[in-house]
Amino acid sequence: MESNLLQHISSPADLKKLKEQQLPQLAQELRDFIIDIISKKEGHLGASLGVVELTIALHYVFHTPEDLLVWDVGHQAYGHKILTGRREIFHSNRQLGGISGFPKRKESQYDTFGVGHSSTAISAALGMAIASNLKGDTDKQHIAVVGDASIASGMAFEGLNHAGVTNANLLVILNDNAIGIDPSVGALKEYLTAVKEGKNPKDNNIIKSLNFDYSGPVDGHDIFGLIAELKRLQKIKGPKFLHIITTKGKGLQLAEEDQVKYHAPGKFDALTGKIHPVSSDNLPPKFQDVFGLTLVELAKQNPKIVGITPAMPTGSSMKFMMEAFPDRAFDVGIAEQHAVTLAAGMATQGMVVFCNVYSTFLQRAYDQVIHDVAIQDLPVIFCLDRAGLVGEDGATHHGVFDIAYLSCIPNMIVGAPINEIELRNMMYTAQLGLKHPIAIRYPRGRGVVQDWKQPFAMLETGKAKMLRKGSKIAVLSTGTIGNNVINALAETEHQNLFSHYHFPFVKPLDENSLHEICQNHEHILTAEDGTVVGGFGSLVASFCTENNYSVTIEKLGIPDHFIEHGSVKELQEICGIDMESLLSKFKKLSLKN
Amino acid sequence: MESNLLQHISSPADLKKLKEQQLPQLAQELRDFIIDIISKKEGHLGASLGVVELTIALHYVFHTPEDLLVWDVGHQAYGHKILTGRREIFHSNRQLGGISGFPKRKESQYDTFGVGHSSTAISAALGMAIASNLKGDTDKQHIAVVGDASIASGMAFEGLNHAGVTNANLLVILNDNAIGIDPSVGALKEYLTAVKEGKNPKDNNIIKSLNFDYSGPVDGHDIFGLIAELKRLQKIKGPKFLHIITTKGKGLQLAEEDQVKYHAPGKFDALTGKIHPVSSDNLPPKFQDVFGLTLVELAKQNPKIVGITPAMPTGSSMKFMMEAFPDRAFDVGIAEQHAVTLAAGMATQGMVVFCNVYSTFLQRAYDQVIHDVAIQDLPVIFCLDRAGLVGEDGATHHGVFDIAYLSCIPNMIVGAPINEIELRNMMYTAQLGLKHPIAIRYPRGRGVVQDWKQPFAMLETGKAKMLRKGSKIAVLSTGTIGNNVINALAETEHQNLFSHYHFPFVKPLDENSLHEICQNHEHILTAEDGTVVGGFGSLVASFCTENNYSVTIEKLGIPDHFIEHGSVKELQEICGIDMESLLSKFKKLSLKN
Repeated sequence: MESNLLQHISSPADLKKLKEQQLPQLAQELRDFIIDIISKKEGHLGASLGVVELTIALHYVFHTPEDLLVWDVGHQAYGHKILTGRREIFHSNRQLGGISGFPKRKESQYDTFGVGHSSTAISAALGMAIASNLKGDTDKQHIAVVGDASIASGMAFEGLNHAGVTNANLLVILNDNAIGIDPSVGALKEYLTAVKEGKNPKDNNIIKSLNFDYSGPVDGHDIFGLIAELKRLQKIKGPKFLHIITTKGKGLQLAEEDQVKYHAPGKFDALTGKIHPVSSDNLPPKFQDVFGLTLVELAKQNPKIVGITPAMPTGSSMKFMMEAFPDRAFDVGIAEQHAVTLAAGMATQGMVVFCNVYSTFLQRAYDQVIHDVAIQDLPVIFCLDRAGLVGEDGATHHGVFDIAYLSCIPNMIVGAPINEIELRNMMYTAQLGLKHPIAIRYPRGRGVVQDWKQPFAMLETGKAKMLRKGSKIAVLSTGTIGNNVINALAETEHQNLFSHYHFPFVKPLDENSLHEICQNHEHILTAEDGTVVGGFGSLVASFCTENNYSVTIEKLGIPDHFIEHGSVKELQEICGIDMESLLSKFKKLSLKN
Repeated sequence: MESNLLQHISSPADLKKLKEQQLPQLAQELRDFIIDIISKKEGHLGASLGVVELTIALHYVFHTPEDLLVWDVGHQAYGHKILTGRREIFHSNRQLGGISGFPKRKESQYDTFGVGHSSTAISAALGMAIASNLKGDTDKQHIAVVGDASIASGMAFEGLNHAGVTNANLLVILNDNAIGIDPSVGALKEYLTAVKEGKNPKDNNIIKSLNFDYSGPVDGHDIFGLIAELKRLQKIKGPKFLHIITTKGKGLQLAEEDQVKYHAPGKFDALTGKIHPVSSDNLPPKFQDVFGLTLVELAKQNPKIVGITPAMPTGSSMKFMMEAFPDRAFDVGIAEQHAVTLAAGMATQGMVVFCNVYSTFLQRAYDQVIHDVAIQDLPVIFCLDRAGLVGEDGATHHGVFDIAYLSCIPNMIVGAPINEIELRNMMYTAQLGLKHPIAIRYPRGRGVVQDWKQPFAMLETGKAKMLRKGSKIAVLSTGTIGNNVINALAETEHQNLFSHYHFPFVKPLDENSLHEICQNHEHILTAEDGTVVGGFGSLVASFCTENNYSVTIEKLGIPDHFIEHGSVKELQEICGIDMESLLSKFKKLSLKN
């Protein structure tokens, strides 16, 4: 074996200098490099290992960055980043100030389109391809690499449906590994499986029916085969579709065997693949587990309860319900729009539906929330996981818009519990029979209460709680950011100046409490982990100006620009809503008062 | 011919008393009835005429309302309404206090799911079907009637993809007439056309590939054939798909010949079908025409300009661009998600993209606006047609959330011109090279300026305009509602008390003007045709409380409940933003001051 090839590759031009026979060695090195860094620095592992050969073949055959390459979702783009000039900074992946875990236009000319959410690549690449045609660049190729979980999402179908009636130089590569984060589901997946197993006649082809030049399925780990096929496709004009079969986690045995766990395994041993155990003794539970276990608990008592997740059974812990009540829990795949309207349909028949969607992904179903749920005032229970700042996934994944985009919708109740017990009680209260839809938002990760499994208690919808009574300054918080407020106030010197009110409900707003607050304080400070524009603080400001209170209001939350990746703590600091920033804000305020 | 059958039918039970041989007569009567009423009262004509036989057959064969029938979109449900107890109030269709133009749960137990936006029916009916299974109702049938334009939308695919792996008693009926509001487009449409023409082998079937029991295509105007096929399908469990071929406008010759015009033709002669001419002499132009003609004008000067519409070439007047520059204008079908990301892809290649989407339909692409356009800060120009209250289409179609859901997004510019000239100038300014995405919202229908085709002038982004200077009360308006303010102020007695500021931009807010306003007035009144929660007024309130101004603020706009159907004028009155309501508000204020 020759000495290290990868270390001499700083761009695809370097890659092209290699002989085809050297590429398997490069593939091995690239795999080892990814495993080595991710084992120490964490990140998404399995997807990138699965497309090592494809990544090399694409940059070897095509003329990137002139030919435009779009990675759908982007979990699989680590190899791409490493081969396009970011090998030496790859260790900074997903860290504050480091490179993004996803392709990002600002980061490199090889990242032609920013991604993160699924199923955008076909539309984006088609847009580029049409633009090239208009500019007379009719030789340019435009490539979208899409996974089989992503291609089942409606948006991908819309892209295919349009592309099929154009003469755009679009190559869609289906990276079929039968899994997204969790195993793929749905009729299309079953169809693709049959194709792989040779069970479908070649002429019964969905993709061909949509006017694509279809080829495959081919082995996505056979680099010579891939290169030959890509070279053939390179010369063909118009919409083309290549179906390749890969193994997620390829090259690391444990990752191939447990693809769900090794999607993003945390730190592990680079040689054996063994995940380093992380002790969770004496730690509070994850909100996700509280959601999942509580749902099962409630479902045992209430036979009308059903659960829906769009492709996040593990991430959301809906898997607990799927295990306990397989007939009453549904993973519908990456199909947020369908998930919400399915929930609405079930609710018309008296089902009590817990529809768990990550806050950032509910953006995909905004119209369905308004049109199918809220207008009909159906009491669907949305559990918005990963609300607020999510940390290392960065700008595409923060769940910071939900308060703004939901609170303007009539009939909606918007809840934001401060801790695990309140989440449980909000879920309990919701399934008792609310007359309206409710969205319960809670963050990714651990809460603050170890002894969380308390008997259920009913919450009064729209009622705020006074946690501390002071004389001049009222701090109003909603959601878990309230814990930072509690901790900061505990360390503030002039505590007697400060009141603290927790609003478990952003909508309806507790107007009685607000009247009391405005009458008894000179200054209001609001704190939330949603956008300041249109968020909780702005609802409070609207109330005060409507009611002619001359109290001054300062709003803390996510400022009006996109927040990048980093740890949640670091990002809170940037936004001024971590404990220390709040403490220093309180100190300043107490000096003034 | 027997005497009138229709007059004896007040429910499907009455329908079932008829002999099958009587049904063609009933079909004729139902058609005549629809034509007669719609010719006088206006409404959607073509779609309902096309499904007269299907409607009768469905209620004749199935046991509605126990069997659950969901009409996608609902334009085609007039016959359904007439046969299910609403014949005598059908003349009140789409009028204030009358029945809705769409199926609506509150209106009838036969309307199982409220519709309006396309492609929701499969998901909703599947939700109902799964609920029935869980309740042990395994004989119940659940039927979704979907048009060929709607089924090409991603959401419908998501529903099919899920349904295909369930044992739900779901019958999807594809009403294939090759047209939505405008002719259908896309690869699926070409595929369906080939199926109809017998060009596709039966085994090459997309629907079968998704695990549906497929039958068709059958003649949707052969009532006996339909009944026989529905009776057969009624007994089959699991997901089924019936492909029927119909003619939009069936039975009215002119409507069959010009299906686009007769989608909703206005008043016409019931016998001849001739549309009654409406004089537009001396009337200001429609905003839609101003958009369409201005786009062509700009496209002649700027070769980078392209246009995108998701299935609304006629409604939005994008058709002008499609006629003038067929290579540079794209009807992508009912695919708002794709439309937005396609625009983003084009923008990365330097195209200047005008993406025209109705305000209410941009809700379908909310995530794409955030994730694909705003995060990447791509200068896509969104033209949001039918913003504000749309009138007779009602709650599902009002474009009242856009200010709230867009202004919380970083990088977005949100514009709302007061008249045609400002719309032109905003379009002109945007294509000169803004560095950020912009959304320009304007209403359905006519503006206020006859002589609108003025030379272009550049607008300063984020700059408000003082239209009137007064001493105490500042009225701040955005968008065309400003014209109501102008007219009301013109009739107010104590005019010297009132200032009027027009904000062509909701974001960025003109803070300089706001400082001036707050310093020189005691009271602020905001007026908009968007939601009060999270809208323009709330942004003003946030500014004032942040800056410690003690001015009082009253916010006029769309209140926090859904507004039903009626004329725009009537609905403005309900919201207190019509000229007369504003005038009486101004009178009250001037008495206090």
